[in-house]
Amino acid sequence: MITLASDFPSPYPAAMRGVVCSRSDARIEDVAHDFPRQDVRAAAFWLREVLPYFPPATHCVVVDPGVGTDRSALVVEAGDHHIVAPDNGVAVPVARELASGDDFDVWEIEYDDAATASTTFHGRDVFAPAAADVHDEGGPAALDRCSRTDDWVDLTFPEPDMVAKGARGEVLVVDGFGNVITNVPGGPVEGCEGIRVDDELIPVRDAYAARDPGDRLVTVGSHGNVELAVNRGRGDEAFGLSVGDSVLLEW
Amino acid sequence: MITLASDFPSPYPAAMRGVVCSRSDARIEDVAHDFPRQDVRAAAFWLREVLPYFPPATHCVVVDPGVGTDRSALVVEAGDHHIVAPDNGVAVPVARELASGDDFDVWEIEYDDAATASTTFHGRDVFAPAAADVHDEGGPAALDRCSRTDDWVDLTFPEPDMVAKGARGEVLVVDGFGNVITNVPGGPVEGCEGIRVDDELIPVRDAYAARDPGDRLVTVGSHGNVELAVNRGRGDEAFGLSVGDSVLLEW
Amino acid sequence: MITLASDFPSPYPAAMRGVVCSRSDARIEDVAHDFPRQDVRAAAFWLREVLPYFPPATHCVVVDPGVGTDRSALVVEAGDHHIVAPDNGVAVPVARELASGDDFDVWEIEYDDAATASTTFHGRDVFAPAAADVHDEGGPAALDRCSRTDDWVDLTFPEPDMVAKGARGEVLVVDGFGNVITNVPGGPVEGCEGIRVDDELIPVRDAYAARDPGDRLVTVGSHGNVELAVNRGRGDEAFGLSVGDSVLLEW
Repeated sequence: MITLASDFPSPYPAAMRGVVCSRSDARIEDVAHDFPRQDVRAAAFWLREVLPYFPPATHCVVVDPGVGTDRSALVVEAGDHHIVAPDNGVAVPVARELASGDDFDVWEIEYDDAATASTTFHGRDVFAPAAADVHDEGGPAALDRCSRTDDWVDLTFPEPDMVAKGARGEVLVVDGFGNVITNVPGGPVEGCEGIRVDDELIPVRDAYAARDPGDRLVTVGSHGNVELAVNRGRGDEAFGLSVGDSVLLEW
Repeated sequence: MITLASDFPSPYPAAMRGVVCSRSDARIEDVAHDFPRQDVRAAAFWLREVLPYFPPATHCVVVDPGVGTDRSALVVEAGDHHIVAPDNGVAVPVARELASGDDFDVWEIEYDDAATASTTFHGRDVFAPAAADVHDEGGPAALDRCSRTDDWVDLTFPEPDMVAKGARGEVLVVDGFGNVITNVPGGPVEGCEGIRVDDELIPVRDAYAARDPGDRLVTVGSHGNVELAVNRGRGDEAFGLSVGDSVLLEW
Repeated sequence: MITLASDFPSPYPAAMRGVVCSRSDARIEDVAHDFPRQDVRAAAFWLREVLPYFPPATHCVVVDPGVGTDRSALVVEAGDHHIVAPDNGVAVPVARELASGDDFDVWEIEYDDAATASTTFHGRDVFAPAAADVHDEGGPAALDRCSRTDDWVDLTFPEPDMVAKGARGEVLVVDGFGNVITNVPGGPVEGCEGIRVDDELIPVRDAYAARDPGDRLVTVGSHGNVELAVNRGRGDEAFGLSVGDSVLLEW
């Protein structure tokens, strides 16, 4: 199985799909093609949340603001999964998740036909062919154009600052519902009746519907972090928070 | 075949897809993941319009404003189809359509691993695993954790009020083109040259393009109901109508 | 393999998908369902860019402002590909690309059950069944309801006016990133340090990231034409250009 993930507006993902189908009989499943545009950190977060639910697969990931520059193309081998992605860190958090730590391998992949590759669409001309080949050959070790490397861009999410009875966190991503996902682990919040969010007391609830429509809540999201939400509404608007904002949580 | 339908923003549907792929070799086809958010009635309408065109399949449907509350998870067996969905009525109109009446069976499904299921993402943790199991076992009867029930939430669409030479109807849904789909059956309108819509005479036409671009028309949509539209424009804006609005049609 | 492309908002494409699955075991891959609404020329452009990357397939294309009028339904046989589409020109540029010229055949396809087809959703009632049948029978020649025709709507993209050291071009499409794609071939621009765009000197670069975020550039896009862009921004807004606008390029 080959999965496709990108921040590409339609119909660019279809060109990748066509290239994969032309080179491989692998089943294709889409992960997402509407990651926040050129937001490598957000894509890295979502990949870490989603890819581990898939069976072993080759994941072709293209969120690539550096397309056409000299950044490398990588194959990351983590557990039974392969992730083909640009060298900007996007594949690293999910690799750590899949490998339960740093026990993953990184390979640099030479462009198959660099001479003819466009400079603006490596999803089609570099990553899709590489994913098809990695899949069909069973991994980068079987490909002459892959070589192990220890020189790759790392990416880690910012740690929250733990303060007395709380944490100063950061908004990592806002999902399409408007739920505000912070970098603060949910553990200390579970079981609380409510916590202070930037000095306002907000109820902690297991379910969005445990609050009336339009009312705010704190929950521990399906990702395990503290999430600020509104039942049937948008948490980002109600809390006035965007990606990268700082937020003080006190329990 | 397993189909997926939800109101989940990306990449949440991919987590469901991964879970299904991890448990089943079934082919997966998407129905939609952009049903109007948490609008159970709109989703129920669209499912009734779309699922009957599929061959027999297991349909995993998650429009679930009650996630994390004590609402049940159901498997509805209708004709040769199975619909796995929360107990909020979303699966009922399509079940009636597939069964040509009330001859469908409803099963409650115990969570497979309720202890570890998140409280906010049952699409991933409850419904996707259930759909994979229902598919692979050939139906709920083969699953120990399924039991027949007569206690489920019904959902019917509002009936129009028939008035002298007309009907007072309601806007059920607005599609992505802006076409306004009412609950008024198209029969009486077919063959009319025009009808009055809230006191304005509007031509009745078979094809959008039978009117000039920007001009309004009444048509009988592919769903069989009266639809208010604009050729190459948005009917909702031109008629000033939204979901739930009342509209008087006179022929 | 059957691919699906349309300008249909969700869940209409799912009805097409269901119809195809009901008639054929073919693998289905999506091309796009968010082509600019009823913009036949834009769809024709994108199909020409994308479909040639697929292996031989039956492509079901429905961008069809004339649905319900007397326009024909066609099967275009080009190279090893079949394109099932309304007779409005949408399939012609890609057919020329696949056939490397005018060596493609056009067949008119009678509606399978015109008596019951809706007048507003031929994607579901006409084109999806036709695509399934064309695929499963190996082409239109094997279908009684197909007949060769020389009477079809052509579509060509406007040619730029070549002027002294430049060209007056037109904006063909704007992609989802906001990149402005013109009808001016990229050849003369490659190797230039900069060109004048409507009298402003803009750097020519191979990669978006060769400019600072927010800065404008000219590039030769993956489609081979001159493209006006902004690194990590929207070219259409920065250049003030929309589809159909005229633009003067001087090198």
